[in-house]
Amino acid sequence: MERDFFQSAFNSLKGNSWLDGLFGLEKENIRVDKRGNMAQTLHPKVFGNKLKHPYITTDFSESQVEMITPPLPDIRQALGFLETIHDIVSLELTDEYLWPQSIPPILPDDELIPIAQYGEDGKADRQYREFLSQKYGAKNQMFSGIHFNFSFSDKLLQTLYSKMNPPLTFEEFKDVAYLKTVRQLLRMRWLYILLYGNSPVVDSTMTLQCKLAPYPIDHNVVALSIRNSCYGYQNIGELYPDYSSVINFKSSIDQMVREQKLVAPKELYTPVRPKFINGPDHISYIELRFIDIDPLTKAGITKEALHFLHAMCLYGLLSDEADVFEANAQSKANKYHGGVALYGLNTPPSVVDENGVQFNIWQKASTHIQEMMDLFQKLEIKNDDYLKSLLHSRYLVENPKKRNVFNVLEGILKIGYIPYHMKMAHDYLEESRLKDYNFIGLEDMELSTQILLREAIRRGVSFEILDRKENFIRLVKTGNIQYVKQATKTSLDNYASILAMENKLVTKKILAEHGLRVARGSEYTNAETAKSDFNLLQGQPVVVKPNQTNFGIGITILKENRDELTFQRAVDIAFEHDSTILIEEFIPGKEFRFFIIDNEVVGILHREPANVTGDGLKTIQELVEMKNQDPLRGKGYHTPLEKIQLGEAESLFLNAQHKHFDTVPEMGETIYLRENSNISTGGDSIDYTDDIPASYQRIALEAAKALNVRITGLDMMISEPAQEANDHNYAIIELNFNPAIHIHCHPFKGKDRKLNEKLMDALGYWL
Amino acid sequence: MERDFFQSAFNSLKGNSWLDGLFGLEKENIRVDKRGNMAQTLHPKVFGNKLKHPYITTDFSESQVEMITPPLPDIRQALGFLETIHDIVSLELTDEYLWPQSIPPILPDDELIPIAQYGEDGKADRQYREFLSQKYGAKNQMFSGIHFNFSFSDKLLQTLYSKMNPPLTFEEFKDVAYLKTVRQLLRMRWLYILLYGNSPVVDSTMTLQCKLAPYPIDHNVVALSIRNSCYGYQNIGELYPDYSSVINFKSSIDQMVREQKLVAPKELYTPVRPKFINGPDHISYIELRFIDIDPLTKAGITKEALHFLHAMCLYGLLSDEADVFEANAQSKANKYHGGVALYGLNTPPSVVDENGVQFNIWQKASTHIQEMMDLFQKLEIKNDDYLKSLLHSRYLVENPKKRNVFNVLEGILKIGYIPYHMKMAHDYLEESRLKDYNFIGLEDMELSTQILLREAIRRGVSFEILDRKENFIRLVKTGNIQYVKQATKTSLDNYASILAMENKLVTKKILAEHGLRVARGSEYTNAETAKSDFNLLQGQPVVVKPNQTNFGIGITILKENRDELTFQRAVDIAFEHDSTILIEEFIPGKEFRFFIIDNEVVGILHREPANVTGDGLKTIQELVEMKNQDPLRGKGYHTPLEKIQLGEAESLFLNAQHKHFDTVPEMGETIYLRENSNISTGGDSIDYTDDIPASYQRIALEAAKALNVRITGLDMMISEPAQEANDHNYAIIELNFNPAIHIHCHPFKGKDRKLNEKLMDALGYWL
Repeated sequence: MERDFFQSAFNSLKGNSWLDGLFGLEKENIRVDKRGNMAQTLHPKVFGNKLKHPYITTDFSESQVEMITPPLPDIRQALGFLETIHDIVSLELTDEYLWPQSIPPILPDDELIPIAQYGEDGKADRQYREFLSQKYGAKNQMFSGIHFNFSFSDKLLQTLYSKMNPPLTFEEFKDVAYLKTVRQLLRMRWLYILLYGNSPVVDSTMTLQCKLAPYPIDHNVVALSIRNSCYGYQNIGELYPDYSSVINFKSSIDQMVREQKLVAPKELYTPVRPKFINGPDHISYIELRFIDIDPLTKAGITKEALHFLHAMCLYGLLSDEADVFEANAQSKANKYHGGVALYGLNTPPSVVDENGVQFNIWQKASTHIQEMMDLFQKLEIKNDDYLKSLLHSRYLVENPKKRNVFNVLEGILKIGYIPYHMKMAHDYLEESRLKDYNFIGLEDMELSTQILLREAIRRGVSFEILDRKENFIRLVKTGNIQYVKQATKTSLDNYASILAMENKLVTKKILAEHGLRVARGSEYTNAETAKSDFNLLQGQPVVVKPNQTNFGIGITILKENRDELTFQRAVDIAFEHDSTILIEEFIPGKEFRFFIIDNEVVGILHREPANVTGDGLKTIQELVEMKNQDPLRGKGYHTPLEKIQLGEAESLFLNAQHKHFDTVPEMGETIYLRENSNISTGGDSIDYTDDIPASYQRIALEAAKALNVRITGLDMMISEPAQEANDHNYAIIELNFNPAIHIHCHPFKGKDRKLNEKLMDALGYWL
Repeated sequence: MERDFFQSAFNSLKGNSWLDGLFGLEKENIRVDKRGNMAQTLHPKVFGNKLKHPYITTDFSESQVEMITPPLPDIRQALGFLETIHDIVSLELTDEYLWPQSIPPILPDDELIPIAQYGEDGKADRQYREFLSQKYGAKNQMFSGIHFNFSFSDKLLQTLYSKMNPPLTFEEFKDVAYLKTVRQLLRMRWLYILLYGNSPVVDSTMTLQCKLAPYPIDHNVVALSIRNSCYGYQNIGELYPDYSSVINFKSSIDQMVREQKLVAPKELYTPVRPKFINGPDHISYIELRFIDIDPLTKAGITKEALHFLHAMCLYGLLSDEADVFEANAQSKANKYHGGVALYGLNTPPSVVDENGVQFNIWQKASTHIQEMMDLFQKLEIKNDDYLKSLLHSRYLVENPKKRNVFNVLEGILKIGYIPYHMKMAHDYLEESRLKDYNFIGLEDMELSTQILLREAIRRGVSFEILDRKENFIRLVKTGNIQYVKQATKTSLDNYASILAMENKLVTKKILAEHGLRVARGSEYTNAETAKSDFNLLQGQPVVVKPNQTNFGIGITILKENRDELTFQRAVDIAFEHDSTILIEEFIPGKEFRFFIIDNEVVGILHREPANVTGDGLKTIQELVEMKNQDPLRGKGYHTPLEKIQLGEAESLFLNAQHKHFDTVPEMGETIYLRENSNISTGGDSIDYTDDIPASYQRIALEAAKALNVRITGLDMMISEPAQEANDHNYAIIELNFNPAIHIHCHPFKGKDRKLNEKLMDALGYWL
């Protein structure tokens, strides 16, 4: 295989397909108490078995939370996923925080650093950690960082393979591609460290040791990335595998084990690792491990940095290699990278390159970035995220003091290493609390699905998004596979029951047969017949409405129903909107949503139309603007509540009450701005779960049983919610087979009823 | 209560609501062998326990099948239901027929008439029949007839009740209404017998006995309705209950029992009976029992006769009563009715009425009918069925020889009593065979639902149509309640699996994960990306198509796919029809539908586009017309196959083959008239259940298991149906969650795969 083998790839493919790949992230954060001491508590029990949780586990120490995303099809999703895991872990901690820095917080003495605990099935894991602790020192295991797992998409590689037509099997071709990428990244990882390294100082409790010349140094060192320097976590001595082929790579490591330089292959630390998950013979993906946690962002890394890493992978695959990268070259490169990590902070140093030549590092960085930009242009990749990342990186080369590490150092200088990072940790926890309903990166999905997926992460349930637009997901945990659409369409209910709920005629018939009260009524397809039923309905309050209706159009409520002409007019109006109309008894009262899961009412909610309450001073407009400040209110259904609009509908509705946006309501006066109570038009959701007498709940459960349903949102009119149910003070309106859960979790007033947790229980994913 | 109490009802309600009611029919037919001998075989075992089957049981004799419809909201439905039960019973008999006449066929001696057999739980029923046999003679129990069960709708009665505002409870009001109707019908049943009586002669094996003066008479008697005369089935002696109130009615019958005139109240025979099903205190409906089987129609009674009976009920309710109808009046009326039954055939007799006055019976009949017509006009009822019935009845009064009984007598005169009725029985069996897919009266429902309901009847599963338009039914048998929509949407499948089948992306993903072959492909929302994938797909046969498509519009098949410009053009064409397109591998072969129920392939079907096969003589048009003669072909989806059209689409398709409707195909040449194979456009359904290698069936079952579905219609492309399946000669297209069953039951070529039976098995309604 010649070195410029991949040159022909340029002609094989043009365009954004070059960006196809899978992206995974791993991040470690040490749990700390509010003073910045490493926590001595156990890993949160809620996350269960460390060896089985797909997203949340520990690394070396019991206090070192490790967060892992699955491979995802783009960087935004991977980053959002990581941040969401971070949120979930943060919210689960009591008086503890996630330490936002690769360099450890206040550490106790080595022997007091709690090594991760495992049960019987984790004995080997525990023993290996004890071995590492002895060989490298426990404190040296406490460096934390981010790993970026990357694979080119199979489709991309297959296209290249079929166009380049090399004398290799497809698997061999993949190995060649990945090994070249690994070598190139090992050669130029200094470029990333130079721009995005961010582990500049250590706490006085930290012990630093250079692995190349093992002696402790002063902890007052200030550097660009201590973690990536020889003081960071590295093997003792120089260990350089053979990256020329998969076979050579494996046997070179086996050789190190035979020579007892390592106890096992996994002890080998390399900043970029080929990974073998589909059998030992071929590379599945590569892992980039030289990434410092960025204290300036909750997720620990920015979108720009990640896009830059991906751009480096492509650049690595397609750029010319300088040499065959044998041990000697690796050793030189290693020292060079270590130099950048140690000295890359302040000076534009003259560095000696792998070949002993002195040069200006900024000049070299600039050249690389220019080549990357040229490459993207040549490949006809058009993507703003990557363009921004490359431009930002070039800007950092041109303005080295704008690197995030300087921002961090400035903060440390002002208030101290521990207080600075603790302040950031505090802020991030507040951020996590504020948007505890979102799954970052999946904000286009329904909120109900987002909060269900958050709970999946919490419980260690793997998931996959099968159809994003449709909110169709798959959940998997220990053999329990569940397909779920829109959070509440599940395997728990049988199709016939769903169809019975969907058909209002059928629903009512079944409920009535079970002695439950429904709005009685009849369907009519003929105005004459409907009108003649005045005889039967005279004097009874009725609603005359088109069979299908939106927003109450064509509906007449006749509370007295004594006048035949008015009745006939109502029938005519309804028939103007549909060829089938319904005449139903009018049920006075308030409508409540009963959310039922498995014979339990898990939430009761009342929705009120958009409204404000006066203070005697502010106008309606001002009151609306104030109410809209609530972070739960947004636009476009990405928040649990919607902002109240000041539009034509609201204006008309106020006018009908002889009010305007400028009217000043009296103190305590409630002004409604809409007739309908939909959340989507600014309505309020008010939790009544603890406030509705049990008799109504029993009725709701009987209804669910009558229709043989396990999950439903039942709507009930209740005349006097304070009184127990009797035969004439309620009526069931309908049962919804796809009720939203988020409105019960994040109501305007009241408690989070944790329906996402209850749903996961029902699906068999118990905590 | 005054006699003209119901006069005020006229002002309470106008219009067709007066026709609201529930209508049920019961009919007995004696099973006979092909020579007209009463069958000595057992009641068909398939109909199970006689005491539990809601539709099919026996009456007095084991050979006397009794068919019972539930109460239904209109006469057409009730009649269709009865005819459908008749069809089902007929098709279940082997070398036996249903005797289409109230007067028995060739009977053996009394002691050889098999009394209905019952198991342990039917001991009392058996004993009662033995008692009847001894008291009245077995042959006298063999008169068969039709019962018409009728109730006014509750809505109708409630409207009257609220308008008339009588000093009664609603239940009392109902009793008053029904008792008046009963009395009036008892008074004027002669009118119905006069026009529709039809039991004119008996076989020589029959024994006739007058119950009023019990001695046998000559069996050569010829009469209008022997069954309704004193020679028919009646109690011995005169027994007249008190119809003045429910309490009086009951106590008068109890008195008869005390006096040992009856062994139990049920022994009392009255031509019209009040019925008490909702407790003993109030009347639920009334039963008219004076209806002879009409040998001229398969169902045993015409629509006209039934509408006339209903009209009589309304007339009875609303017309003035002549007297208080005590025993004396009943006795006189009885003799009078008996006289009409005996002598109403030929002469316009001067009859002595209840009061001893002589009058012309035709004149009196004419007056009644005119009053009924006046009543309908006064009530503003506008309904063609009733109008036709009344006009027809008037026509019969004016043309007595046009009564059906004369038609029957003429037939008997020509070929004899037994041969005439056997010929009719034969003809009806042929009719039953011809349309064995229809549920008469429900022909507007989907065929799949119709044949499922037929099987429900066969198995004695009660059903109710919850939403007719939606084909939504409920099945009930011994505690097993099943809701079924469109025949195959049931409780057997869970909702998540339905949603997985509905979503093609999800289906394919799951199948592929299970190692099953699907048409691989990708979705595109961007033409550029799609076009760039030519690199990947070059040289592979593909189909480029809009995501949503009808009738193949916008689809391009590229079997070679070597030319990039053609590929790009195909992408552009697809994007002209949808904003999302699919590029999938092209799978050559034939498409087969695998119908799966509970891990069994119960039917495999291939659909061919509309076609004819030449004979070297006829034109395409003539061949089509000939093929369209098949009774399985109809229009508008009411038959298993549709007629081939000779329209524009067919003409264009022929033109593309340089053919026209006038072209004469060669002997054996198959000419296709459409590209698509839909049954709806004249396609043929061809059963392949026994012709597809088991390996494909295993694949289909694996697919159903992968999606966790119990009922599905799986579509598979198979390249070479004669060869076993391998990794490249098939592909699964999709799984349908609402597959039609009728196409497998009534294919163009091949066997009835009885999917209705298999579905009932799966639903737990085993035979």
